[in-house]
Amino acid sequence: MSDAAVVSAALLIVGNEILSGRTHDKNIPYIAEKLGEAGIRLREVRVVPDVEGEIVDAVNALRGRYTYLFTTGGIGPTHDDITAECIAKAFGRPLTRHPEAFRRLVRHYENSDLEFNEMRQRMANTPEGADLIDNPISIAPGFVVENVFVMAGVPKIMQAMLQNAIPTLTGGAVMLSRTLISDLGEGTVAAGLQAVQDRFPDIDIGSYPNFTGSGFRNALVLRGTDPDGLEEAVQAVSALIVSLGGKPIDGDTP
Amino acid sequence: MSDAAVVSAALLIVGNEILSGRTHDKNIPYIAEKLGEAGIRLREVRVVPDVEGEIVDAVNALRGRYTYLFTTGGIGPTHDDITAECIAKAFGRPLTRHPEAFRRLVRHYENSDLEFNEMRQRMANTPEGADLIDNPISIAPGFVVENVFVMAGVPKIMQAMLQNAIPTLTGGAVMLSRTLISDLGEGTVAAGLQAVQDRFPDIDIGSYPNFTGSGFRNALVLRGTDPDGLEEAVQAVSALIVSLGGKPIDGDTP
Repeated sequence: MSDAAVVSAALLIVGNEILSGRTHDKNIPYIAEKLGEAGIRLREVRVVPDVEGEIVDAVNALRGRYTYLFTTGGIGPTHDDITAECIAKAFGRPLTRHPEAFRRLVRHYENSDLEFNEMRQRMANTPEGADLIDNPISIAPGFVVENVFVMAGVPKIMQAMLQNAIPTLTGGAVMLSRTLISDLGEGTVAAGLQAVQDRFPDIDIGSYPNFTGSGFRNALVLRGTDPDGLEEAVQAVSALIVSLGGKPIDGDTP
Repeated sequence: MSDAAVVSAALLIVGNEILSGRTHDKNIPYIAEKLGEAGIRLREVRVVPDVEGEIVDAVNALRGRYTYLFTTGGIGPTHDDITAECIAKAFGRPLTRHPEAFRRLVRHYENSDLEFNEMRQRMANTPEGADLIDNPISIAPGFVVENVFVMAGVPKIMQAMLQNAIPTLTGGAVMLSRTLISDLGEGTVAAGLQAVQDRFPDIDIGSYPNFTGSGFRNALVLRGTDPDGLEEAVQAVSALIVSLGGKPIDGDTP
């Protein structure tokens, strides 16, 4: 598929807790789906530890390569929250107290029985010139520097931040997806599927076997931006399944 | 923490289906945990699309940087399964038919009503000189080239392959983990936690807030290889929580 007009994104997960296996990431599928709906294709994900050099290097590698970079994690008040410092270093900008972020936090803690102490004040630090991403859940905002969107790691907060960020993004053509399920083995459909793929170079065709409680099923997923081309390819794969003695089931209807 | 004696690993997920949001990865936490038990620390994860150049570049970046590289996905019989070709390119080795892999597949399909066609025969291709990783589930093996372990993406198959691979790995010190849970806000414990972290530089201390159905809880996770140092740090964090009016709960007892 030609990538000329593709609006692309990468996700950088700052996450010792993912790398230790303690926390199961729930953010990748949510971000992939929401960006997809906005016409932005997630092209790479990296998970790195809470180590300054690793974060800075990954930010600089990814922000130059994709239209947008999203980061999750490391923006809380504790000593292991170092993402804001790292983004500042990656851009060669000073880390400064963001007046509006500070104002929001002052007001939030005034209305609580919690002290707005020095560590909590760290949550108002952003690279100089950053714009804020609103956080309706726990107030401490995310922020944007150029094409880098810095969000919380807690899924509920990340989701709210992403919803606030998405209207500010410029998307491309929305990727449409269709799924055909059958119990034909991957190797049974493989040659015919290759032929369909060759006939429709603008459609991405993937084959995803699955062993469920009720036995083997294979999902053939077709993705593309042109609805007519996609429908034609779906018909070709459907006919292939039937020709091999299978019964194609529409995997998109719940 | 000094990384001198650390045995490290990276995971490369070859996965259009992860990047589209269709499939939720279940392999990261399993691999992280099993490697951790073997004294190998997962230090980076990358998810890349089923695109040759992306896979080759990621393999070469990661295999040089970590003790071991594990890959998941892209070793089936369909046209989108290109991992074996990519590993061969990354090492500058020819892709060859592995005689033992071929023999296993011949025998497997002889005992089935499925044809051992050309696309299925692709599953016997490995870079020249590769060793096999047994696959007791669906026979088609994974393989090892130098420090790169190539496994299936389907979790059940990947798990069986990893179990077969782990006895061949040389691990370092096993990372021990302890968790203390309380309802104290992150900002409330942050300054004291920083002080404990400064006192125990060999222990990694992380703070992971969580909004459960029953309200806010924060998990403080301490990790290190020295049991005595870890226990001392746990006591210090526990005392910190008590001094701030909280009640530390042992998060490791189920």
